[in-house]
Amino acid sequence: MTRVVRDPDEMRDVVATAKRNRFSVGFVPTMGALHEGHRSLMRASWRENDRTVVSIYVNPLQFAPQEDFERYPRNLERDVESCAAEKVDVVFAPAVARMRPPGHSTSVAVAGLSHDFEGAQRPGHFDGVATIVAALFCLVQPDRAYLGQKDFQQAVVIRRMVRDLQMPVRVVVCPIVRDPDGLALSSRNVYLSAEDRTEGLRLPRALEKAERAVLGGEADGDLLRTMLRDAMRSSRRDVTVDYADVVHPETLVSLGKIDGHAVLLACLRVGAVRLLDNRVVAPAGTPAWEA
Amino acid sequence: MTRVVRDPDEMRDVVATAKRNRFSVGFVPTMGALHEGHRSLMRASWRENDRTVVSIYVNPLQFAPQEDFERYPRNLERDVESCAAEKVDVVFAPAVARMRPPGHSTSVAVAGLSHDFEGAQRPGHFDGVATIVAALFCLVQPDRAYLGQKDFQQAVVIRRMVRDLQMPVRVVVCPIVRDPDGLALSSRNVYLSAEDRTEGLRLPRALEKAERAVLGGEADGDLLRTMLRDAMRSSRRDVTVDYADVVHPETLVSLGKIDGHAVLLACLRVGAVRLLDNRVVAPAGTPAWEA
Repeated sequence: MTRVVRDPDEMRDVVATAKRNRFSVGFVPTMGALHEGHRSLMRASWRENDRTVVSIYVNPLQFAPQEDFERYPRNLERDVESCAAEKVDVVFAPAVARMRPPGHSTSVAVAGLSHDFEGAQRPGHFDGVATIVAALFCLVQPDRAYLGQKDFQQAVVIRRMVRDLQMPVRVVVCPIVRDPDGLALSSRNVYLSAEDRTEGLRLPRALEKAERAVLGGEADGDLLRTMLRDAMRSSRRDVTVDYADVVHPETLVSLGKIDGHAVLLACLRVGAVRLLDNRVVAPAGTPAWEA
Repeated sequence: MTRVVRDPDEMRDVVATAKRNRFSVGFVPTMGALHEGHRSLMRASWRENDRTVVSIYVNPLQFAPQEDFERYPRNLERDVESCAAEKVDVVFAPAVARMRPPGHSTSVAVAGLSHDFEGAQRPGHFDGVATIVAALFCLVQPDRAYLGQKDFQQAVVIRRMVRDLQMPVRVVVCPIVRDPDGLALSSRNVYLSAEDRTEGLRLPRALEKAERAVLGGEADGDLLRTMLRDAMRSSRRDVTVDYADVVHPETLVSLGKIDGHAVLLACLRVGAVRLLDNRVVAPAGTPAWEA
């Protein structure tokens, strides 16, 4: 039975009981609108932990004023059903007023890593993410937390935060889940028309093409960046590349030359929807990358 | 036997063992140079918890570049003796390189509360405090943390951080410990000459005088602020009032009129030494204040 907890104090009690029973706790933080990507995280948690907690919280802190906080897809009932189908033990769905009580004034920031890419496009976004994830980690006290690789920068920011704040949490990054056509799953894909979707496919195809080039021996960062941009070019004027880069998987520093693992990181804007995708790549023969 | 732990990973193991045994953990974060004030915190922790951890860490983040980080008094051996005398279970004295590894880029900030008083005199100070205390709380996972009321603003900032980040820690604020002459104990008092000390006594005496006025019915904030400043005036030109205010005990907002608990908060600068002191006051007949 999946238990739905709305009260942070009740959540704290549930965790305390689990800890007293020496159960390991896996945690999947989400904003709801759950899809197969989230469900893959729940399954990973279920496999590796005695108890799994999924949080559903549309965090106002990580939306800029003009963004889609109000219209972000919300359907708690359906989300709870998804969690139940994945044998999740607890769905934690607190009210904003409880996570952000009057006088709330604490923020967590991860400098450097938050600056470029999504950070440049969405000022304050990662401070909002780091702040709420820190609070959720303090509340849920998971042994392991499961994040999707689709939001690669977010995973890197959270992993750094966990290390710097000495949090006793292992951050596990799980592979991107895609629709059969290749588009990475995202709660915001519901905003796409069929035609937008076709445009959006330029993104995973560009990443694939660049990956093939890397495997074929191409190591020049600038050339790969140009290849990504060219491959995403559209005749539609509202289809634009927000960024397309080849970066170090831990520091997110733009690479001049690939000589180990690198991340092809890109965002394609289709109309009002920003599609994110990435691929971890390496020259042929490089040992596997541990996310 | 007091155990000295230098390695954060070892500290984590020690805590995990205590938790597995369902021991409650009390925690006293310090920068060392321990005096009777710190020892009163250790005793409070000892009374209320199964295990007591004292951290000794001179946190570079909370010193401004021109401040006394380099010459801040350090004597680990003597500090460990003090802890042993107070039956402390673990002294955690990590190296800076372990608490702040290469690439460290996470900071915790408590807006508003950090802005005035010490925050205005020491830009970035409370970000440094909040960041290290958050990390120590994540590492030590105390049930209760003990702070001295002498650093009143610090206690308010930390309490707010704990609430906002949903940390499962009770912050206990313990009374100021004073030398027989009335000066609040501080590790920095060693910097004072005998003559400086005489000047410094203007501070607790001014607070006493203002408290008597409040008990006598004086409720006007401006009048009390003036009274504090006047009472601290010195003929020595290097004795100056950094601030002297009457504030709300939780928001630190300057009060126009006292109609409940208030804090007389002041800092007197004597030469290069900044002396901090405060008193929680209330009109006669107000119920006791719970720190």
